[in-house]
Amino acid sequence: MTFAATILTLYPEMFPGPLRLSLAGRAYEEQKWSLDTIQIRDFASDKHRTVDDTPAGGGAGMVLKADVLAAAIDHARLLQPKAPVLAMTPRGKPITQARIRELVAGPGVTILCGRFEGFDERIFAGREVEEVSLSDIVLSGGEPAALAILDACIRLLPGVMGAPSSGTEESFEQGLLEYPQYTRPPEWEGRTIPEVLRSGDHAKIAAWRKAMSEDHTRLRRPDLWDRHTGDRD
Amino acid sequence: MTFAATILTLYPEMFPGPLRLSLAGRAYEEQKWSLDTIQIRDFASDKHRTVDDTPAGGGAGMVLKADVLAAAIDHARLLQPKAPVLAMTPRGKPITQARIRELVAGPGVTILCGRFEGFDERIFAGREVEEVSLSDIVLSGGEPAALAILDACIRLLPGVMGAPSSGTEESFEQGLLEYPQYTRPPEWEGRTIPEVLRSGDHAKIAAWRKAMSEDHTRLRRPDLWDRHTGDRD
Repeated sequence: MTFAATILTLYPEMFPGPLRLSLAGRAYEEQKWSLDTIQIRDFASDKHRTVDDTPAGGGAGMVLKADVLAAAIDHARLLQPKAPVLAMTPRGKPITQARIRELVAGPGVTILCGRFEGFDERIFAGREVEEVSLSDIVLSGGEPAALAILDACIRLLPGVMGAPSSGTEESFEQGLLEYPQYTRPPEWEGRTIPEVLRSGDHAKIAAWRKAMSEDHTRLRRPDLWDRHTGDRD
Repeated sequence: MTFAATILTLYPEMFPGPLRLSLAGRAYEEQKWSLDTIQIRDFASDKHRTVDDTPAGGGAGMVLKADVLAAAIDHARLLQPKAPVLAMTPRGKPITQARIRELVAGPGVTILCGRFEGFDERIFAGREVEEVSLSDIVLSGGEPAALAILDACIRLLPGVMGAPSSGTEESFEQGLLEYPQYTRPPEWEGRTIPEVLRSGDHAKIAAWRKAMSEDHTRLRRPDLWDRHTGDRD
């Protein structure tokens, strides 16, 4: 089955961008995922193809019009009736690896990319759209965020990553950050690889890695740690 | 002054990618920022140009070698001695809009993009590198994350955004999510624009927007809200 990505954007030329190379590029050639871009401007109803207008109440920037967005979303829904529609916005719910896993288990995803000051708020009442935030930084548009989310999905598609275990021992998969990794040379600039990793004792290695994951998460990401320990209660 | 971006990557062709268009693309043509990509593989020391090796202690995937990374980082430091070096990794500190502002105030940024299972941990002891996470999702490499971070920087460079106030009333800038935006038509599918925004009363509009920002942040992002209210104590 092919995972169908549909992107609503004012800049379709930004896609597939970095996703035409490496892991995602190979997966695309193998038809593990497909890409449709929809130009939002094609759904403007006036002869000037207007997609945005000044904010009601004043202020800087421009706001994407609800009527144009709705027409574009309705078109995407016709193409992919079962794919959830995500709108990239810093006001949205932070994306998680668990949500990525859910998306990957489905038929595909439609991603709406904003530009300017954002979306007319009424679109979220008028259409079934999930407001999603990538990160606590503000981008010039949703496109770089959409690329990151697609990349996270594609690598988890069946057969894309080399080793099947690669996906499940990583950061966030168990609600923890990954343990530190080391490779040859055994000594570099006076720094050695932790003894336990050279012991060949698989149980000891697994225990050390688990302890390191927990320590790092507690120290670096108390927010994740609280959620992790809360889950076990 | 030109903001100098340097990217250490195994896929230099992924850059500038989406950043050659729209706001970032125009700013690039106007020489508001520059881009250097450094191919990490050029710093491998063997004839096979090996950049990675199997993880010490076993496990799936491959780990980027500390010696090769160090040589590439040292080269980047020669080019941009004053730019901080960020390594994109899910184990890092989550990027914030405040950190983006700090980067933009400086001469530029060097971003190290990993692939595979990640970096040999010793690189973080052996070189001054800031471990940064974009989001709580796992990407196939640091490149999409680097593109997002550059995009966030570029839009804040002097003269890049149209209206100077555009940058400061947005999500995260005051530690809050942005208020909802509306634009014409005044009624869409039976949904109207909130009365206050059509009142012309600027003080009332500002108060409404502040209250909406606070409400949304409290409801949608209790983590941000706690930090915000903590800051005021």
